[in-house]
Amino acid sequence: MAVASAVRARGRDVLLFPIRGFADAALTRFPHHWIHLGAFGRPLRLMREAGCTEMVMIGSLVRPRLWQLRLDLTTLFLLPRLAPLFRGGDDRLLSGVADLIEARGIKLRGAHEVAPELLMPEGVAGNHRPRPEDEDDIRFGFELLRAIGPYDVGQSLAVAGHRVLAVEAVEGTRAMLARIAALRRDGRLNLPPRTGVLVKAPKPGQDRRVDLPAIGLETIAEAKEAGLAGIAVEAGGTIVADAGALARAADKAGVFIVGVGPAEKSR
Amino acid sequence: MAVASAVRARGRDVLLFPIRGFADAALTRFPHHWIHLGAFGRPLRLMREAGCTEMVMIGSLVRPRLWQLRLDLTTLFLLPRLAPLFRGGDDRLLSGVADLIEARGIKLRGAHEVAPELLMPEGVAGNHRPRPEDEDDIRFGFELLRAIGPYDVGQSLAVAGHRVLAVEAVEGTRAMLARIAALRRDGRLNLPPRTGVLVKAPKPGQDRRVDLPAIGLETIAEAKEAGLAGIAVEAGGTIVADAGALARAADKAGVFIVGVGPAEKSR
Repeated sequence: MAVASAVRARGRDVLLFPIRGFADAALTRFPHHWIHLGAFGRPLRLMREAGCTEMVMIGSLVRPRLWQLRLDLTTLFLLPRLAPLFRGGDDRLLSGVADLIEARGIKLRGAHEVAPELLMPEGVAGNHRPRPEDEDDIRFGFELLRAIGPYDVGQSLAVAGHRVLAVEAVEGTRAMLARIAALRRDGRLNLPPRTGVLVKAPKPGQDRRVDLPAIGLETIAEAKEAGLAGIAVEAGGTIVADAGALARAADKAGVFIVGVGPAEKSR
Repeated sequence: MAVASAVRARGRDVLLFPIRGFADAALTRFPHHWIHLGAFGRPLRLMREAGCTEMVMIGSLVRPRLWQLRLDLTTLFLLPRLAPLFRGGDDRLLSGVADLIEARGIKLRGAHEVAPELLMPEGVAGNHRPRPEDEDDIRFGFELLRAIGPYDVGQSLAVAGHRVLAVEAVEGTRAMLARIAALRRDGRLNLPPRTGVLVKAPKPGQDRRVDLPAIGLETIAEAKEAGLAGIAVEAGGTIVADAGALARAADKAGVFIVGVGPAEKSR
């Protein structure tokens, strides 16, 4: 929604293709056509008819099994190239789908290209700053994210005092933070309050046309619940929708939120 | 318990130091002295009096915070060297404690040294064998474990079709497998039944005197519940207590269990 609004604010027309079973009905306040997951023919035809030249893929969905897709003729035609993409992580799958769409004449754009104002800027947002030990954990976290990058694992992890509390895989950031909160509540993870950092970044070498990491107001609430001191994300590589609102929420929750530039990240 | 029995079966005397709040009371059928976590003086004195020359550390505990330890004079004396060990992963902490104990004249032994018959042997145990795609995931899993080794994250992860389902950190193997089971039940992880492998191994460069990975009958039940096809562990680097019982349980559950030698692992 934030992306659609931002693109429109720049004076461009938008046409949405919400996916049945996944997309929020609120999206229908924009011009739209509901589509079925896996039916490529209809949206491609509608885009051609509407004169669309560019497309942005947004949001997450439960990865389907190949036979659960609503196949149409176009998809059947693409099947030989689609099937092998199911072997591997999400990045491989999404990136391959993006290539298939581009081969049909639609240019895929990352959200960061069409609406750069939605991305986390560099530096601290809000009043809470990372302490030196947090900065240390941020460096450690980005380094570990880089190390697992080639394995297409996930986009985030949590570290406290160089100790890895959790690594995100298919469960997602929210479930990972809830797990840390539960471990602390149960006394199975024994840490002073407000220690540890959520570190989130696109996978190194990730196809940025698809699935840029995002954080929102709920991420701040979840990080607080997990007892973390703050959140560090890659500046220019993470969708925050509204950095101002995020900073205010972080201040209220007593957590820091910082955008770390690529140069800073790799030091 | 299996280790104490195995050592005794070799004709050696054992003396146990169960830690209050963590150890199983069943251990008291061996000669023992209950101790408090963090009080080093008493066990060191009792070991000296009993003529102990070697010690094996077994089992897991919730990592305490430094101030929660029941400090005695010996521990206070060790404190300057103990405190820095709390910065980092579990391997660093345990390995450092092992060094401190050895400096007092007690030789730390890994369970694999005093009771090698408790370790997983190389090859398939039981009747179910990994399929080619499972072998592929096993290689992938060991490779990823090696990549995260320097960060002291955890000893296990689960992979299905080169897609990383979960990575273990502080939550432990059981919670990680329960998470996969829940994701499948909720439909948030959409995989054919009996796909994916639990891969478990000591961290590369891990101090094998302490905290060797272990699997048991409950691990087989948990892997089955998580819908996995099987379990792969490092042969000679994983405690299984009773490989025969494990093989029978695996057959009954319909999962494979395989010990992979270090050479095989790195291919």
